[in-house]
Amino acid sequence: MSASARRLSLNLFIYPGGHHEAAWRYAASDVDHLLDIDFYQKLARRAEQAKLDGIFFADGPVLADNIRFAARFRLEPITWLAAIATATSRIGLIATASTTYGEPYNLARLFASLDHISKGRAGWNIVTTSAGLAAQNFGLSEHPSHADRYGRAQEFVDVVTKLWDSWEDDAILLDKKTGIYADDTKIHPIDHIGRHFRVKGPLNTPRTPQGRPVYVQAGASDDGRSFAARYAEAIFTAHQTLANAREFYADIKRQAKALGRHPDHIKILPGISPFIGSTEAEAQKLHDDFNELVQPEYSLHQLKRMLGIDLAGHDLDAPFPSHLINFDGAQAVASRFKVVLDIVDREKPTLRQLLHRLAGARGHWVTVGTPEQIADRMETWFQSGAADGFNVMPPYLPGGFDTFAEQVVPILQKRGLFRLDYEGTTLRDHYGLPRPESVYGQQARATA
Amino acid sequence: MSASARRLSLNLFIYPGGHHEAAWRYAASDVDHLLDIDFYQKLARRAEQAKLDGIFFADGPVLADNIRFAARFRLEPITWLAAIATATSRIGLIATASTTYGEPYNLARLFASLDHISKGRAGWNIVTTSAGLAAQNFGLSEHPSHADRYGRAQEFVDVVTKLWDSWEDDAILLDKKTGIYADDTKIHPIDHIGRHFRVKGPLNTPRTPQGRPVYVQAGASDDGRSFAARYAEAIFTAHQTLANAREFYADIKRQAKALGRHPDHIKILPGISPFIGSTEAEAQKLHDDFNELVQPEYSLHQLKRMLGIDLAGHDLDAPFPSHLINFDGAQAVASRFKVVLDIVDREKPTLRQLLHRLAGARGHWVTVGTPEQIADRMETWFQSGAADGFNVMPPYLPGGFDTFAEQVVPILQKRGLFRLDYEGTTLRDHYGLPRPESVYGQQARATA
Repeated sequence: MSASARRLSLNLFIYPGGHHEAAWRYAASDVDHLLDIDFYQKLARRAEQAKLDGIFFADGPVLADNIRFAARFRLEPITWLAAIATATSRIGLIATASTTYGEPYNLARLFASLDHISKGRAGWNIVTTSAGLAAQNFGLSEHPSHADRYGRAQEFVDVVTKLWDSWEDDAILLDKKTGIYADDTKIHPIDHIGRHFRVKGPLNTPRTPQGRPVYVQAGASDDGRSFAARYAEAIFTAHQTLANAREFYADIKRQAKALGRHPDHIKILPGISPFIGSTEAEAQKLHDDFNELVQPEYSLHQLKRMLGIDLAGHDLDAPFPSHLINFDGAQAVASRFKVVLDIVDREKPTLRQLLHRLAGARGHWVTVGTPEQIADRMETWFQSGAADGFNVMPPYLPGGFDTFAEQVVPILQKRGLFRLDYEGTTLRDHYGLPRPESVYGQQARATA
Repeated sequence: MSASARRLSLNLFIYPGGHHEAAWRYAASDVDHLLDIDFYQKLARRAEQAKLDGIFFADGPVLADNIRFAARFRLEPITWLAAIATATSRIGLIATASTTYGEPYNLARLFASLDHISKGRAGWNIVTTSAGLAAQNFGLSEHPSHADRYGRAQEFVDVVTKLWDSWEDDAILLDKKTGIYADDTKIHPIDHIGRHFRVKGPLNTPRTPQGRPVYVQAGASDDGRSFAARYAEAIFTAHQTLANAREFYADIKRQAKALGRHPDHIKILPGISPFIGSTEAEAQKLHDDFNELVQPEYSLHQLKRMLGIDLAGHDLDAPFPSHLINFDGAQAVASRFKVVLDIVDREKPTLRQLLHRLAGARGHWVTVGTPEQIADRMETWFQSGAADGFNVMPPYLPGGFDTFAEQVVPILQKRGLFRLDYEGTTLRDHYGLPRPESVYGQQARATA
């Protein structure tokens, strides 16, 4: 394979305790250290040793309502990644943050800081927050509608982009002799006046190593897709089947092209939660062991969040009661709604079987097999227009990731599908994304 | 001196480039690395080697309007301190954050993270933001009034306190066998409904090592003083004279006592900016060298911010035109207004002399002398009811701090005024502050 051949992008998606909803109960899970930064620094260093593109934290500004049964508290991702940044030197650091429940000026500062601290490794997973309960932590009587959230998200991204661009790259002169610290003609107020925000700017931090953090997006509704096609440089997505993943991939690349973007500048990265064994039987046993630990009361809570219906009290071993699904209702998590319906259509599961299917990674692709089999499946998705890489979602930590790093990554490397070493230092370098010029710098050059 | 004798608290107040407004022009200033986290990690480790209580960053969500002449950009303090936390193990980490331009739920999360990441070393310098221009970055047509800002600040602190208390210390059970992760009767919604905020809670993060970060405050107006007496556990204050510092100290301790608080649980820490030389003449020469670098255009900008009047064009070597001061006007920085008037009354300076007096540390105490003399003056303030310690504000970095750490700290230690080593691991330990119990835990015990 030539050095310029297309290669997989791989992130480690860190969920405290692991992605399987019962991971914290698994004997080999290290869950005594979920509030200990050392645990995450070690994990990030392992991911860096395996040459992954980035690590990623999800987020939402509200406590899950089923904390009784699982380690579902949240770490604030930007601060945790700032602390991980200085224990690593290459791996990308992707934080989720909401456009619905924050101020653009504050968030622009936090991400600019992370990009400076990490010397160019920050990514922002832009979310509108699906958990309606969040509204109650921010003085709102109700969660804004899906369309309103996306309207605000677009304007939010426009504002923070202008703030990140507000200092041109060469604004700092640092001329001790003349006493001129900065060329203030290269530091621009953004004078934004829009429907949701009025922000004068400029940002109070010089431009960052990457110019702007990498823009990541994860919504799969129609609004989410067009938002992604316009803004995203990486997309975290959930698909259960190759066919669905290919449809999504083709649609996004087509929409992006129609907007004049280079399709290679949007990396589409489905989630994959691998249960790995040295034999198929061993892998299956591992998966079964996890399902043994599942607590239906918790799983039904999760299903309710995805489908909007409460199936508590239903016979777990009867067929899933499809007729109760409300297709017209507003679903909290649009992307997951489709995933669940798709499983139901295809597999006709019992309620318990459906709960087990979803317990692994909340609707993401769970795959069970030997390292060769996992690598084969990843290669198939990669080579057949379904993925540019993957968000790796270990069922438990740290062992679930160690197995992947030690047994699957070397196979991908041997096949020429994954890097042997980093070639650059920033997350943009790893993903093969250009460093954007400041819009103000462009304007200045255009009128010069 | 016995182990329990009263001892100084000392923080390093880090201003990028140093506190003297022309520090960045000084030859020995390292200003090529002001956006490099390594620079601050090294500085924090030096402060930790000197056994200081904490390091401290100021903040405001707006760019200073005179960036042309000085390194006056802002680092976002919480992210920078998160990155410094993991390069240190004992020193406290105090970040400034505004109650006027943020949401309590978001800020509570950021500080809870910092306290977890640092294993109990976070402090919050609570400010209402004095820079009126900040309003324009947050969609407001004007900066809220001083009284409104303090009203919101009180409610803001009440809300975040309840959020930090919302998980009792023993809420996490982690019982793999029964499948109970947390005792959700020990995780409390806060159900706050007030004039400025409606926040349901609970926080989405377990209680932190210190229970709550240390509450720090810096305002010196009447509102600021009563706010401090009620909430603050450390006060950063600016005084030019022993007499003023004593008046402030006595007033705060008296007000705190009247509120039923233990006066030892509020550490009063004036700023001190020491110009140190091996002889008095050498120290004076250092100070003169800095004044040579001052740029009047910049200094007049700063003075305008403190006094609300623009003296550009006035004869720098004529007496300061006191008659132009508007005593009835709303001053942006109430605490500094008094400091400036006091200098004018006492010293009858020319305009240039006044600018030089303020260039050192924006109204804080600048003191010039040998290490012995500096130590003597600190001891006098400490022993005569003016200070429980100091916020050390080096004129330039890193040399300005190195000299203090290497030459002044050992004298204070020899005199038994400062610790030889840390006795605890948290900022509360260093300041001798109790760890607060969760209010919800207290209530539960009271009704049990």
